Amino acid sequence: MNDENKNTEEVTQEESFPDEEQETVANESAADQATDEEEVMDVIPEDIKKLKQEAEEWKNRTLRVQADLENVRRRNREERERDAKYRAQDLVQSLLPVVDNFERALQVETESEEAASLLEGVNMVYSQFLDALQSEGVEVIKTEGEPFDPHLHQAVMQVEEDGYESNQIVEELQKGYMLKDKVIRPAMVKVNA
Amino acid sequence: MNDENKNTEEVTQEESFPDEEQETVANESAADQATDEEEVMDVIPEDIKKLKQEAEEWKNRTLRVQADLENVRRRNREERERDAKYRAQDLVQSLLPVVDNFERALQVETESEEAASLLEGVNMVYSQFLDALQSEGVEVIKTEGEPFDPHLHQAVMQVEEDGYESNQIVEELQKGYMLKDKVIRPAMVKVNA
Repeated sequence: MNDENKNTEEVTQEESFPDEEQETVANESAADQATDEEEVMDVIPEDIKKLKQEAEEWKNRTLRVQADLENVRRRNREERERDAKYRAQDLVQSLLPVVDNFERALQVETESEEAASLLEGVNMVYSQFLDALQSEGVEVIKTEGEPFDPHLHQAVMQVEEDGYESNQIVEELQKGYMLKDKVIRPAMVKVNA
Repeated sequence: MNDENKNTEEVTQEESFPDEEQETVANESAADQATDEEEVMDVIPEDIKKLKQEAEEWKNRTLRVQADLENVRRRNREERERDAKYRAQDLVQSLLPVVDNFERALQVETESEEAASLLEGVNMVYSQFLDALQSEGVEVIKTEGEPFDPHLHQAVMQVEEDGYESNQIVEELQKGYMLKDKVIRPAMVKVNA
């Protein structure tokens, strides 16, 4: 009866989540059972129940961690795709003022042949610059004549102009740019009321 | 005896990795045991062993999947850091010929005031352009006077020039660029023999 009490106590302790120490309980009772046939019926069903619980809990844990693993993998893929898609954004942002100034510098009337030749060369560089930006997914937002779209355009002036529909863009004041499907700078426009 | 045989058979089947179907074995024998005291000793020790094995295997599986999860998280962090570090590389690569042509276009002697003024404006745009590249980690590789370094420089000519040490760079023929710690275009140079 002394042994039986000991075992019952040990089994009662085993309530929380299974861990390495608790495994020894099953070990001991399996050994007891081999030598002491009287005790078997009192102890074994409890042990089996605990062991089954333990296996079940580890199994559920495995499934949860496996699900986590799948989620983390999927999220990684999505994050890296998004990272890749807009990877050029910071550099493009800091190049937009360069494009603006480039365009401003090129808006000169040239009279001398020397200046005209320089302007031609620099204009070619400008085109090549825009091509490089375009190859990374940078696009100019359409404005004049387009219907005003608050996602793409920023209305800085409202006018009443003949020949334009209500809400139609009359003039572009500053170019806007998209990077792929993302507006990185809305176009500043004058809109018909 | 019929029941006993049935149980022994079922236990023998339970050899491979535990899965959901096999759990029922333990269930059944626990139930048998409650109603049929004669069989308990034959079956239970086997069941306990199997159950312990099952718990152990699920536990090991949990630990393996947890280790996988940690690895995937760490690798993802590293990949995203590397992605972020060199994110501008493609755009920078396609901008380098633009920089080259920009520099070529600006290497003119101006005589007219008109051309000089245009040149000044465009030179400012050029500086701003380089600043934007620099803010993304683009740096010009040093050449003239530096010791030749095959990781940074590409020797296109070898000369014998007074006043230069052996292997010292005499002249730069095309600028080279780094993106952070990565050479994205080696500098083409003339090296002293």
